[in-house]
Amino acid sequence: MTDGANQATNTIDVAVFGAGRIGRIHAANLARQPGVRLKYVVDVNREAAAALAAEHGAQVADIDGAMGDASIGATVICSSTDTHADLIVQSAAQKKHVFCEKPVDLTLARAQACAEAVGRAGVVCMIGFQRRFDPTFSALKARLDAGEIGTPEMLVVTSRDPGAPPVDYIRHSGGIFKDMLIHDFDIFRWILDDEADTLHATGSCLSDPAIAEAGDIDSTAVTIRTKRGRLCQINTARRAAYGYDQRFEVLGSTGMLQAGNVRPTEVTAYSKTEVSSDVPEAFFLERYRAAYAHEIAHFFDAVTHGKPVRTTVADGLKALELAEAASRSWREGRAVKLGEAS
Amino acid sequence: MTDGANQATNTIDVAVFGAGRIGRIHAANLARQPGVRLKYVVDVNREAAAALAAEHGAQVADIDGAMGDASIGATVICSSTDTHADLIVQSAAQKKHVFCEKPVDLTLARAQACAEAVGRAGVVCMIGFQRRFDPTFSALKARLDAGEIGTPEMLVVTSRDPGAPPVDYIRHSGGIFKDMLIHDFDIFRWILDDEADTLHATGSCLSDPAIAEAGDIDSTAVTIRTKRGRLCQINTARRAAYGYDQRFEVLGSTGMLQAGNVRPTEVTAYSKTEVSSDVPEAFFLERYRAAYAHEIAHFFDAVTHGKPVRTTVADGLKALELAEAASRSWREGRAVKLGEAS
Amino acid sequence: MTDGANQATNTIDVAVFGAGRIGRIHAANLARQPGVRLKYVVDVNREAAAALAAEHGAQVADIDGAMGDASIGATVICSSTDTHADLIVQSAAQKKHVFCEKPVDLTLARAQACAEAVGRAGVVCMIGFQRRFDPTFSALKARLDAGEIGTPEMLVVTSRDPGAPPVDYIRHSGGIFKDMLIHDFDIFRWILDDEADTLHATGSCLSDPAIAEAGDIDSTAVTIRTKRGRLCQINTARRAAYGYDQRFEVLGSTGMLQAGNVRPTEVTAYSKTEVSSDVPEAFFLERYRAAYAHEIAHFFDAVTHGKPVRTTVADGLKALELAEAASRSWREGRAVKLGEAS
Amino acid sequence: MTDGANQATNTIDVAVFGAGRIGRIHAANLARQPGVRLKYVVDVNREAAAALAAEHGAQVADIDGAMGDASIGATVICSSTDTHADLIVQSAAQKKHVFCEKPVDLTLARAQACAEAVGRAGVVCMIGFQRRFDPTFSALKARLDAGEIGTPEMLVVTSRDPGAPPVDYIRHSGGIFKDMLIHDFDIFRWILDDEADTLHATGSCLSDPAIAEAGDIDSTAVTIRTKRGRLCQINTARRAAYGYDQRFEVLGSTGMLQAGNVRPTEVTAYSKTEVSSDVPEAFFLERYRAAYAHEIAHFFDAVTHGKPVRTTVADGLKALELAEAASRSWREGRAVKLGEAS
Repeated sequence: MTDGANQATNTIDVAVFGAGRIGRIHAANLARQPGVRLKYVVDVNREAAAALAAEHGAQVADIDGAMGDASIGATVICSSTDTHADLIVQSAAQKKHVFCEKPVDLTLARAQACAEAVGRAGVVCMIGFQRRFDPTFSALKARLDAGEIGTPEMLVVTSRDPGAPPVDYIRHSGGIFKDMLIHDFDIFRWILDDEADTLHATGSCLSDPAIAEAGDIDSTAVTIRTKRGRLCQINTARRAAYGYDQRFEVLGSTGMLQAGNVRPTEVTAYSKTEVSSDVPEAFFLERYRAAYAHEIAHFFDAVTHGKPVRTTVADGLKALELAEAASRSWREGRAVKLGEAS
Repeated sequence: MTDGANQATNTIDVAVFGAGRIGRIHAANLARQPGVRLKYVVDVNREAAAALAAEHGAQVADIDGAMGDASIGATVICSSTDTHADLIVQSAAQKKHVFCEKPVDLTLARAQACAEAVGRAGVVCMIGFQRRFDPTFSALKARLDAGEIGTPEMLVVTSRDPGAPPVDYIRHSGGIFKDMLIHDFDIFRWILDDEADTLHATGSCLSDPAIAEAGDIDSTAVTIRTKRGRLCQINTARRAAYGYDQRFEVLGSTGMLQAGNVRPTEVTAYSKTEVSSDVPEAFFLERYRAAYAHEIAHFFDAVTHGKPVRTTVADGLKALELAEAASRSWREGRAVKLGEAS
Repeated sequence: MTDGANQATNTIDVAVFGAGRIGRIHAANLARQPGVRLKYVVDVNREAAAALAAEHGAQVADIDGAMGDASIGATVICSSTDTHADLIVQSAAQKKHVFCEKPVDLTLARAQACAEAVGRAGVVCMIGFQRRFDPTFSALKARLDAGEIGTPEMLVVTSRDPGAPPVDYIRHSGGIFKDMLIHDFDIFRWILDDEADTLHATGSCLSDPAIAEAGDIDSTAVTIRTKRGRLCQINTARRAAYGYDQRFEVLGSTGMLQAGNVRPTEVTAYSKTEVSSDVPEAFFLERYRAAYAHEIAHFFDAVTHGKPVRTTVADGLKALELAEAASRSWREGRAVKLGEAS
Repeated sequence: MTDGANQATNTIDVAVFGAGRIGRIHAANLARQPGVRLKYVVDVNREAAAALAAEHGAQVADIDGAMGDASIGATVICSSTDTHADLIVQSAAQKKHVFCEKPVDLTLARAQACAEAVGRAGVVCMIGFQRRFDPTFSALKARLDAGEIGTPEMLVVTSRDPGAPPVDYIRHSGGIFKDMLIHDFDIFRWILDDEADTLHATGSCLSDPAIAEAGDIDSTAVTIRTKRGRLCQINTARRAAYGYDQRFEVLGSTGMLQAGNVRPTEVTAYSKTEVSSDVPEAFFLERYRAAYAHEIAHFFDAVTHGKPVRTTVADGLKALELAEAASRSWREGRAVKLGEAS
């Protein structure tokens, strides 16, 4: 039983760490996969763990209980960021496949240790960059790869949240580049299929002075030039009054592809003064509902059939490197070269 | 146990009749309702029944077996149209609540008998006009009811299929007005909140002469004037090369509301010659995926909590009357008055 | 000097009849044509005539003065509808080419007399169906003719004014079908390239009871079935709260073409609750600004180079026949056959 | 006759320098202004000058002739960039008002000399940043100023040409930042109503190696942080396969405003595979047709009524400073501070 799967029934038993909102989404999605069974829910909040376990006929466990059960074939890590690295390393040690929410860790050193651990163990480790599984984004990527717009030359990413999280959260978030732009850095690498050569980041705190007091900013403008000379601009804001704004566009040598927002309904209203439609889906849970379902299906498909995963721990590391470079660029007020001594 | 619900567990056991594509959708949706259990699948095609039953841990039964089981609290009827009336009447006789796909029956007389049977039995009988549960359509209706565009005055419905069904199906379909426009007639009544006074229908067979040979048409243009003088135009076609087209718009005294199609993705492509986006969702199973889920949830919510259903057997009768009037108008080449001796 | 053109300078001298808003538009547009000179402005309102004449270095004249001047090569008739027929006949008698606003006349008999007069005289007579010159509409027509959507099968026309004219105007307008839908009937013939076989019209007075008292309606729904079995639905309203709404769509055997409204600007605004853009151009003067310029250029190009005009007096007659049929259908509550004894 | 206007008739006589495509557009637009007369056309290409003069009943002159004629009240300078400064200075010396195409000059020193010359002379000097007169852009600006989205915080500008000019043109253009982004820098200042504090520019040559050989790039990504901490990102490309792309969006504290492209027609086509509409207007002559008309009207309105102009020579200087800063940033691979010793 080298891969932890339950051979008798060909069912993979799973432990979910973290019963918060993203944990509940992954639990519901994995419960729908044929051949996958949610066995344990682990959370320091026992009530939350119990509620989620009950919903899916699973049991509450603690970390050791879940990690120590040889029948568990895969772990799904949705707990707080500071627990990710330990849980990944433990999973790897127990030869359990791992799905872990981003980021791997807030420090490159620990993230690299994770990469090495899963590499040594030979287990699958997928990082939850769910945007790559968004139907619009993945359709765009497929068309790009099919050559529809020739060679990609420029990427413009707009990534804005509907509102800033509590300042207390921000204080422990690793800063906007690691907490929020980590996704955009992954989009950059995935879409342009190239690595950053230089990066420039600037930003401001415009919505709430408390964010500045916490040492962070809420609005950023990042520019990346890749090794092949391709250009990427990312603009982000913690607060877009009209909601969650997740778009990007790729200019290619023979055309352009745009990925737009999703609207709750297709109602258009005509009044005396304007023609209006819905604002975008409210936030990530709504916008990426389908993406979350697809990524979990992808993970278990990879685990079951020995296929590669689309978002590896190496991708997590690369995104983290970009976040660190952005942070340095912003703090030092200069463009930085990736790989320069930091 | 007057309402057939399983009192011990507060679970409603359900029998699904018909294991075709719509039966499979309803089965999957009802299996997701808390407190609802799929117990039997009934289909003359035993293999299809067995496959669907296996997927949800249910059993295969025949009509008598399912109807005779007092623990069955509700039936979900997705079998062929000619079986609807009998199954509704039997369900009513057994005091089982009924969810039945449209149309109730191809004849008004039998449909009326169904209405009387469920009325006498005091059971819930919901007809599957799923469009009323489409997120876009129901959001529009709510805004209309809230007075956003004043008094509704004119309704324009565009309802086109991506392609005609086999001629053999058409031959037994009751004709385009009962088979296809039945949904549009229900939309008309629901949106304008009024009853037809006069109706004019015309049409042509433009896509396939075999449809004309079968005595039917594939393209229609219907106009209804309501008792309050409101106007409705419906245009339909069996074949829209670009896919399934389901739109309507309501002109009100102070504005307009439009309900548009849903697209699979929000990718926009710019080429040398055009800016393009996706064609609409392919057909009803894709376009109304959410609507089907919402209507089944609505049915079991109504059954469980004794609430009224949004689409009653009376609505089914009214839509059928309009379909009959349209058929007569088309055949006789004249506008008809609703309620005139036929 | 058979065609009335000023041979010495190769300039066509023109008399404009009517100095109202449409007269002013045509005067400004013709003044921009190379080789065309506005010589006379004729209007019972001498002040209006004088103002318009002054603006373009022209003179005020009365009907006889303008018609009697042999140097006048073309007349542009923008006076009130009841003067059209006489002015056309006089122009023809004087061998002057004629551009006349729609409708030719409110009666078929007089309109036919006009057709005969211009036919005998051999002069160009173009009727001002400017919509055929709208950039969007004419681009759609060209693509349709190029076979982009195969054979046209169904046409849906939406034609709504931002508000009803004064009831006194309506009283002398010939009714909504001759006053407003005359344009839509012309669009129907032009786009489907077919003639009506049967027509059904219904309508209501929903915006202002005074319109009903004047014997007219403000909302109509017309259906036409052509000789080749093609279908057309036209919906119109005198009052669309959101402005002037001029759209149509053609379903063809291999696709669909839609002609949409034009917006004053391409600003999109995102607020907390909606994404909004401009309402359509306010009314015909704004929406059809380019169309008016194109049609006048087309007229003088035809006159100068002996080319056929796109909108002939015969088109005016056909549109009028449809308006009369619609009026009869509405009054008698029945579908009518074109060409039936009235 | 201190302001050079022709007092007898209250007509301003104008000399146009440059009979190329932009000169022809300005000539046609100014010929339409009431009270404005095109008297001279000056161009080293006498044939072009003669053709344009003939079209508007003007005369051909040389520079001295035009400048020396005291009846000339205003000059419109559309000749090659290297002539702008001299012609501005001469116009000022002759007390003639000046409309001059961008840029004022390729060097800051000469541009400053122009500013001083017109300042001393007390003449109006307007620089042709026509984008500020685009109906969409100016409507957005008015709504922004009215507070519709609160405080502006972030500006994203997309500015792409349909294709690169000949390399020989590029060689003398002053580089992409002075030749192309000069407009975008003006948009930045106008929209954010703030001045740059730091600027970072990077870029690549992706479409044609000959551009790199000429020492220039064809794709740029610029980021500006303003004194108030607002952020601006500009992305430009010399070649967008789908045409001329001129958009920007402003994120404000309470919403967002987007300015989109203009399409030649509002036709939408549905095929088996896609829903498509027109690509944007082809290039600046088409896209900014209305803007050119508005800016000339604005100039003569300012001259006639002594009003301030919207785009002054000071604006031209500021845009040039930004272009120089961008050029330096790109060449040196670092963010620069505006006003730093260069």
